[in-house]
Amino acid sequence: MEFATALVFIFIACACGIVWAIFNWMAVHKVEIHHKHEGLTELLQGAEQEKIETLLEIGEHIQDGAQAFLREEYTDCSVFLAIMAALLIFISPWSSLAFILGAGTSMLCGYLGMAIATAANFRTAFSAITSLANAFQMAYRGGCVMGFLLVSISLAILSLIIIIYNAVIVKSDENNYEDLVRMFDYVAAYGLGGSTFALFGRVGGGIYTKAADVGADLVGKVEKNLPEDSPKNPATIADNVGDNVGDIAGMGADLFGSFAESTCAALVVSSTQLRVQSDTGNTIEIGQLMYPLMVSAFGIGICILVSAYAVYISKVNHINKIESTLKFQLLLSTLALSPIIIGISYWALPPDFIMIAADGSVQLSGLKPYHAFLCSLLGLWSGLLIGYFTEYMTSHSYNPVREVAKSCGTGAATNIIYGLALGYLSTIVPIIAIAVTALLSMKMLSFYGVALAALGMLSNLTIGLAIDAYGPISDNAGGIAEMSELGANVRESTDALDAAGNTTAAIGKGFAIGSAALVSLSLYGGYLTRIQTYKVGDEFPFSEGAKIDDPIIFAMLLIGAMLPYAFSAFTMKSVGKAALQMVEEVRRQLHEHPGIYAGTEEPDFRACIAISTKASLKEMIPPGLLVIVTPTAVGLFFGPQAVAGLLPGALVSGVQMAISASNTGGAWDNAKKYIEAGFYRNEAGEVKKKGSDEHKAAVIGDTVGDPLKDTSGPSLNILIKLMAILSLVLAGAFCRTGWLYQG
Amino acid sequence: MEFATALVFIFIACACGIVWAIFNWMAVHKVEIHHKHEGLTELLQGAEQEKIETLLEIGEHIQDGAQAFLREEYTDCSVFLAIMAALLIFISPWSSLAFILGAGTSMLCGYLGMAIATAANFRTAFSAITSLANAFQMAYRGGCVMGFLLVSISLAILSLIIIIYNAVIVKSDENNYEDLVRMFDYVAAYGLGGSTFALFGRVGGGIYTKAADVGADLVGKVEKNLPEDSPKNPATIADNVGDNVGDIAGMGADLFGSFAESTCAALVVSSTQLRVQSDTGNTIEIGQLMYPLMVSAFGIGICILVSAYAVYISKVNHINKIESTLKFQLLLSTLALSPIIIGISYWALPPDFIMIAADGSVQLSGLKPYHAFLCSLLGLWSGLLIGYFTEYMTSHSYNPVREVAKSCGTGAATNIIYGLALGYLSTIVPIIAIAVTALLSMKMLSFYGVALAALGMLSNLTIGLAIDAYGPISDNAGGIAEMSELGANVRESTDALDAAGNTTAAIGKGFAIGSAALVSLSLYGGYLTRIQTYKVGDEFPFSEGAKIDDPIIFAMLLIGAMLPYAFSAFTMKSVGKAALQMVEEVRRQLHEHPGIYAGTEEPDFRACIAISTKASLKEMIPPGLLVIVTPTAVGLFFGPQAVAGLLPGALVSGVQMAISASNTGGAWDNAKKYIEAGFYRNEAGEVKKKGSDEHKAAVIGDTVGDPLKDTSGPSLNILIKLMAILSLVLAGAFCRTGWLYQG
Repeated sequence: MEFATALVFIFIACACGIVWAIFNWMAVHKVEIHHKHEGLTELLQGAEQEKIETLLEIGEHIQDGAQAFLREEYTDCSVFLAIMAALLIFISPWSSLAFILGAGTSMLCGYLGMAIATAANFRTAFSAITSLANAFQMAYRGGCVMGFLLVSISLAILSLIIIIYNAVIVKSDENNYEDLVRMFDYVAAYGLGGSTFALFGRVGGGIYTKAADVGADLVGKVEKNLPEDSPKNPATIADNVGDNVGDIAGMGADLFGSFAESTCAALVVSSTQLRVQSDTGNTIEIGQLMYPLMVSAFGIGICILVSAYAVYISKVNHINKIESTLKFQLLLSTLALSPIIIGISYWALPPDFIMIAADGSVQLSGLKPYHAFLCSLLGLWSGLLIGYFTEYMTSHSYNPVREVAKSCGTGAATNIIYGLALGYLSTIVPIIAIAVTALLSMKMLSFYGVALAALGMLSNLTIGLAIDAYGPISDNAGGIAEMSELGANVRESTDALDAAGNTTAAIGKGFAIGSAALVSLSLYGGYLTRIQTYKVGDEFPFSEGAKIDDPIIFAMLLIGAMLPYAFSAFTMKSVGKAALQMVEEVRRQLHEHPGIYAGTEEPDFRACIAISTKASLKEMIPPGLLVIVTPTAVGLFFGPQAVAGLLPGALVSGVQMAISASNTGGAWDNAKKYIEAGFYRNEAGEVKKKGSDEHKAAVIGDTVGDPLKDTSGPSLNILIKLMAILSLVLAGAFCRTGWLYQG
Repeated sequence: MEFATALVFIFIACACGIVWAIFNWMAVHKVEIHHKHEGLTELLQGAEQEKIETLLEIGEHIQDGAQAFLREEYTDCSVFLAIMAALLIFISPWSSLAFILGAGTSMLCGYLGMAIATAANFRTAFSAITSLANAFQMAYRGGCVMGFLLVSISLAILSLIIIIYNAVIVKSDENNYEDLVRMFDYVAAYGLGGSTFALFGRVGGGIYTKAADVGADLVGKVEKNLPEDSPKNPATIADNVGDNVGDIAGMGADLFGSFAESTCAALVVSSTQLRVQSDTGNTIEIGQLMYPLMVSAFGIGICILVSAYAVYISKVNHINKIESTLKFQLLLSTLALSPIIIGISYWALPPDFIMIAADGSVQLSGLKPYHAFLCSLLGLWSGLLIGYFTEYMTSHSYNPVREVAKSCGTGAATNIIYGLALGYLSTIVPIIAIAVTALLSMKMLSFYGVALAALGMLSNLTIGLAIDAYGPISDNAGGIAEMSELGANVRESTDALDAAGNTTAAIGKGFAIGSAALVSLSLYGGYLTRIQTYKVGDEFPFSEGAKIDDPIIFAMLLIGAMLPYAFSAFTMKSVGKAALQMVEEVRRQLHEHPGIYAGTEEPDFRACIAISTKASLKEMIPPGLLVIVTPTAVGLFFGPQAVAGLLPGALVSGVQMAISASNTGGAWDNAKKYIEAGFYRNEAGEVKKKGSDEHKAAVIGDTVGDPLKDTSGPSLNILIKLMAILSLVLAGAFCRTGWLYQG
């Protein structure tokens, strides 16, 4: 395929995606809120003016809080990003520029996602007054804006970088592969930028949201018996802000990182290794490397159609239809993309190609386009499998969560034991899926295959992001409905939207982890190729390959496997410490202002927002440093072999912890929801709901699960990805140093 | 060193160890219990006859229960062991015989340990009436019997096997190394036998003890507000039986496994690779391979002196002296053994030696005895470091546990979050210690060095076992004192002994995990050497080395890292299920016989013992099968390379989980004890003890920690060791099969 042809299709797809996002953005903003809404007076049953005003006011508070946090976070991070960008100039100014653009794209998308989410949340609550279908539309359209903007903007910017770098760096001489390889090395810093910012977005956002949530629960639900999202609880608004900064902006940054890194990994590996044999020798042209970007571009197109189906055709007029509609989106996009990916591979790739090793010898020969689409499809379908299995393990429609709910009958301790066991057990299927995908795609196309598998898993990312972002929007809508006392029927609708959102959030986390594992593996492949290239150049000495029985490799494998534990300890304690500060503030307010509890005085929620903001920005420093400093220090002091052990250690251990933490937390949350919905019966057959001992035990599990599922678990994705891409970018430096240890 | 000289020293040491054990055994049994004991009438303050009779009766019940369990366990396991022994005949009848002897030794030592523990427990309680020093003596002497019998008997039997196999198998031709290698291959099945039985001992015992403990706590402490070890709780005696079958017999089997396997690994690796260069070529004699056994033999000797110091010289006449005396034993034995190990290495090893690779080429040359003692000392001292660090993380004398106790102020959820974070954090130091030990010992002497490091860590195993077994004996003594209502001052003494026992138990677990990691690594080395030997022989095809970027290796690394999660899920759910059965039985008894709660009727504790026995024997099957079937199936279907990825995956992931589970559980237990001892003050400065909300939160943590620290955590040692030794024994079979996947 010609480079120009590929670019045309890519930019058309990006433009369509952005138009569709803007269209949904406008549809959300079209809902203007006033109390004279059709039929509304009747539905609200009096005092409506006041309630609607409260609703608007709360929506504004959440928006202000989220913006304030992002402003502070962006300011703080900018300093750090500027330092890193400055250091990268030593590697190359081009790397530095790509790094800044990657971080900037991530920031921009996070900000836009947060803006639409805080515009959609109170409109969803408002729409729930009229009908469930309207509310679902609002939340889902909000999610779509986020999904399509993020993927389209990042693909467009990445393509622009490639055009410019190609024009400036690659000399027009034929077969100048070295320039091509060097150029994509620089482009890879785009992924590094995205991932570095994602570190702060995920970790900082994760600490923010859970400090507020846990703090609010500890005082509100446990001590004072206030319902969730009670307007009397000063931490409630901070909790709602947290959903936007953690689950929207943070999650978006994480998945943008995966997307950017897997594309960069594919480009780096393929420019180095993918070749077409011809009479004049092995050749490659930049257009032939555009396959991964084409898959993403067509992914946007298909996802527009799939989401249009949800918006215009499917009717979510009953609670039971919510989860199935969202799940169907995933299935539909996977089904529709499969033949498209097959088609693209025959169109975009050379009909015959080979992979060469670091020394120029042929590593794999006789390769055809079908090898590439098999890798992509393996990723796409194992993503679906992971998503559906995650749903099975974390939705209270199935046995595992119900068993956890049942264990609440003997108290919080058995609930915790069963929940932990569920999380551990839930690693089996995703790990086998990832392992099989890795095995087959490595067999077929080495690490290029792994990168394609990662991209395949992310090819319906827009839909994944849409149904994922739908969750926190619904969660917020529920909170806003509760705080503005909109009545039981409204709350029932938003609760149902929220419960489905819990499950889609868990599915989203499954995708994020699965893709992170594959991305990290492909980056590791890129890293190994880099250090072997240095070796072939005979410039720097170190022993060959990454053998497990090499002492430094094994020792670092062990230490790498320890890092996710250290990282989780840091993040969990951060949440604990920040939550305790929140508890103290809430206690102080309730104590000093008895009017708050009586409902005559408004709590000072701004103080709570300030605490979460300050604590999260401070507390993300130690885990952040751990991720950045460890591989850098290990590489500089112990050389490239040490890092070649450290990365897979962190990968194979971190992915297990991430999966089990996310699913344990999701299961506890939904076990609690199962009891709250009145499905739980004790041995005597009595229904036990809110306020029962069983419910209290379930709340303890939910509270423990909060930092696991929303802070430490998902942050581990960043750990394994960022360490890998950082090592890839610094590979050359490691080969020149290794001050303390030589092979 | 001559073979005969080595054997003389080894058997003298074993004899001394056995004599010292018998001496202590007699000292324990010398305490005959009668109510006319000197000054006793006064101390007991009336009704003494009845209390002493209760004490004797309870002691007998515990003994009966423990014997009944071991009888059933041994019967059930014998069937399985017989099947495995029969299958091993296909490899060699010699392997089968060594396997049976290994399993038999483990059973014998477990039985003897249990016998002395159930004789020492009620005598400890009885002695506590007269003085703390007497009670300490009793518990410690009991521990010594266990420690010295186990190590001496197993070393003696292993030496006997070597003598016999050497006489029968090794032909008298000079330089017949192949026979020597083959013989030690057969001997290695001794370790396999020990480890296979340990699987059942550790897992079955672990499920037994925690099903009883958790079940007793859930109904007793949480529902009925009974104190711990209340005689009104029907599950109390099962709980005490559990301490003996889990923490004595199970733990003994685990450490016997480590000891036997690390010795076998050293012998296998050294017979294959250790050579002395001479004019006539590379030679080796069996006597020169006896260094590892000599270290163990002298370890017994030194430990006799060290334990005699505790028995005769140190005076434990105050509560504060207990923990320091026990810790000092560890330090003293480490200090005393260091120069001895240096001496033995110069005496027992050739002055110059080399290590050869699988193809006969020189892998490491210029090796001296100091390389060997450096490896052993690295293991010995990193064991001490791990032990002391574990104490720091799990004793309530230090900040980490106090912080966890403080977090109980905001409820059970924060207690769980802080406890989990503590466990994760506690992996850092032990992992770095193990990694550094592995790195340096592999660098110096390849996998022989790792085996020597493991043996170094276990060279003061007798002391380790003694202070470890001291724990459950004291725990039992406390329970018995409570049940026979011996009065507050007695309970105070036994509580103090028990609290120190919690810490030494955690230290023991640290040793067990550290040694398991090194043992497993050295066995992995043996496995790699074996499959490479097959390759050199060109009999079976597979790609070279264990490279992480080999697709099957990476895929299996990932799956291996998942196994500890699956295994923990199985064992934790087993405990949960068995505990729920126990809860139902206790509820039934208390409901149907109100006289039990009123104290007028005796509970039917035999029914509870039967439940724990039955449940544990049934529930240990799934985790047991996982450990045995997984490496076997992977090897047979995917070949030797797949297993070469599976083993390190399970190792690097399992060791983290084991450390964090043990320390989390230990910390929760001691945080609870911290509150119970009245050290905890809330923000208002009030002391919060038993019955407070803080204490209830701490009890929830303790209950969650029970299966983590006593079932799933320590069972992971077996997982990583057994998979490795099983693969070593089956290496030849894997090279011939690999039906589904060829390199």
